[in-house]
Amino acid sequence: MIAILIAAGISLLVALLGTPVFIRMLERRQYGQFIRQDGPQSHMTKRGTPTMGGVVIIAATLVGVGASMAVIGRFPSASMWLALYLMVGLGAVGFADDFTKIRKERSLGLTPRAKIIGQGFVGISFALLALQFPNSRMRTPAAMRISFLRDTNLDLAFAGATVGLILFVIWANFLITAWSNAVNLTDGLDGLATGVSLVVFLGYVLIGIWQVNQSCHRMLSPRCYEVRDPRDLAIVAAAIVGACFGFLWWNASPAKIFMGDTGSLALGGALAAQSILSRTEILAVILGGLFVIIVLSDVIQIGFFKMTRKRVFKMAPLHHHFELSGWGEVTIVIRFWLISGLFVALGMGIFYAEWVVS
Amino acid sequence: MIAILIAAGISLLVALLGTPVFIRMLERRQYGQFIRQDGPQSHMTKRGTPTMGGVVIIAATLVGVGASMAVIGRFPSASMWLALYLMVGLGAVGFADDFTKIRKERSLGLTPRAKIIGQGFVGISFALLALQFPNSRMRTPAAMRISFLRDTNLDLAFAGATVGLILFVIWANFLITAWSNAVNLTDGLDGLATGVSLVVFLGYVLIGIWQVNQSCHRMLSPRCYEVRDPRDLAIVAAAIVGACFGFLWWNASPAKIFMGDTGSLALGGALAAQSILSRTEILAVILGGLFVIIVLSDVIQIGFFKMTRKRVFKMAPLHHHFELSGWGEVTIVIRFWLISGLFVALGMGIFYAEWVVS
Repeated sequence: MIAILIAAGISLLVALLGTPVFIRMLERRQYGQFIRQDGPQSHMTKRGTPTMGGVVIIAATLVGVGASMAVIGRFPSASMWLALYLMVGLGAVGFADDFTKIRKERSLGLTPRAKIIGQGFVGISFALLALQFPNSRMRTPAAMRISFLRDTNLDLAFAGATVGLILFVIWANFLITAWSNAVNLTDGLDGLATGVSLVVFLGYVLIGIWQVNQSCHRMLSPRCYEVRDPRDLAIVAAAIVGACFGFLWWNASPAKIFMGDTGSLALGGALAAQSILSRTEILAVILGGLFVIIVLSDVIQIGFFKMTRKRVFKMAPLHHHFELSGWGEVTIVIRFWLISGLFVALGMGIFYAEWVVS
Repeated sequence: MIAILIAAGISLLVALLGTPVFIRMLERRQYGQFIRQDGPQSHMTKRGTPTMGGVVIIAATLVGVGASMAVIGRFPSASMWLALYLMVGLGAVGFADDFTKIRKERSLGLTPRAKIIGQGFVGISFALLALQFPNSRMRTPAAMRISFLRDTNLDLAFAGATVGLILFVIWANFLITAWSNAVNLTDGLDGLATGVSLVVFLGYVLIGIWQVNQSCHRMLSPRCYEVRDPRDLAIVAAAIVGACFGFLWWNASPAKIFMGDTGSLALGGALAAQSILSRTEILAVILGGLFVIIVLSDVIQIGFFKMTRKRVFKMAPLHHHFELSGWGEVTIVIRFWLISGLFVALGMGIFYAEWVVS
């Protein structure tokens, strides 16, 4: 518990105090954001706001986790390394993308090919490594089973270990790609992705603490959770909550800085890592329901348009639809925060209800 | 647990769906808010926004609690009746005030004297009743001891029961007046008081659940909590969280409705009730630290001005100072929400730490 509080507290301080320093550094070098050409007209005024704030989120998370480990005097477990690896790895791809945008002074960054290669390398290596490192109870960080509230009987290795390995790599990379794109798409209004991430990772802190207390390591019962290192996952999630908290101070409307692809890919990666390693892959779809809705709005819009040449929404993703419908940016952001709070409450309710019943 | 979820869920629905109905009702009667003459100039544009939204908050809370009781098939305990009585009672005083403002078309409502008589009657009767109704373990809803994380040894009855009774009535009424004024003063920017209340009462939901699980009724240990009806207090707090959540949907910037004195006095009363009945009177000062800071800013401003004819802040209470310092309204609101989230986290940390140590 104390480790979790330290991680969150230190990370919060680093993000809160570090962000303005970072903003000044970027401004001195005249690095500003080039706003997507295809967003609403009103967003053109946002040109020039510094981006790559994800650097601060990642740094704050690492410092928070590091401080926490130092205080309790333990080395990170395999799950912690993996969660941080996926976060930093995807963040690095995002950073390369952001940096290219700034350097080339254009709104599009890395070539799609370079981006896919980068994400693919990080995602595949994550998936392969996550099946190694069994602990004394032969638990690996990830499993070849699809998980909902815990591992289900949907075994990807139903036709042998090799098929299982291949299917798991595909499944894990699907999740990683989906979540990082979801956070990326959501990051279109001041403070939106940061605030939603904050509540989702707060949910993961609670899940981690709960899994520690109800671990099969402590007591064997049908209700217990077979997760490797839930405490360390909670520490990482807490550090991310702290980082989002501190960053939101500056990122809330009117944003002094954007998180950029650096931030959205890192947070998406961190969310995928939490869901895979804490064995809550499907539950994450509920917890992060707001991200999912935003992705779906985009998919529906594009799919429908291709089929019928008609638009379902005035503009996709969804938040732009409401903007063009006359809602204020702040109204949308706060209401979306409220909705994601409800999704997390719903997810936690389902998670808890299953424990009570089982 | 299920009772808590039902209370929050139903109350949320009532507030979310009921608020626009209430807004339309008020608009049809052309009831609008008359903005305080002494606020920043920019607030003059808020003239005409309907007020008395506290009616919805109170109604939603009552329906949520009622539904919860109906589902689990129990009658409310003494503590629950008392908490609701203080909330509704002060809300009624606030309503009389709001209604007078609208009727007389002026910014000041009830005469100070009428207001004090109303608040005094509700507060004194609450305090007297809270010392009655011992349960089978001889626990009364409130105690004549000042409480921090639980009842302390600071016994108000140190010089006998009569002195204790008088001191307790004074102490309880000090808390009730302080909290209702604090929420009232905080209610100066769109969504500010609602959002801060939301996180503070969320803290009280957790405290209630914790006190149920660690109740001396369940297991006698130096760590256990001697609180009458913690579960019912958690249910009331959860209903208020739900109500604030639903109301915030409409109250967030740009506010379609204000809570008015109806809401701020009701929420202040509910907070005082939670702190007195859950035996966390001093802890509440940390949990509601943002309310406290805002009151202090006002006290400091007035005190300093009387002494030196100089102003500490550009304008009090504090949020207006930042407004005149050039922060946007939304920036202040979101940052104040973040700060109150930190206060609640700090308070919960202290609450938990004492339990671990004791």
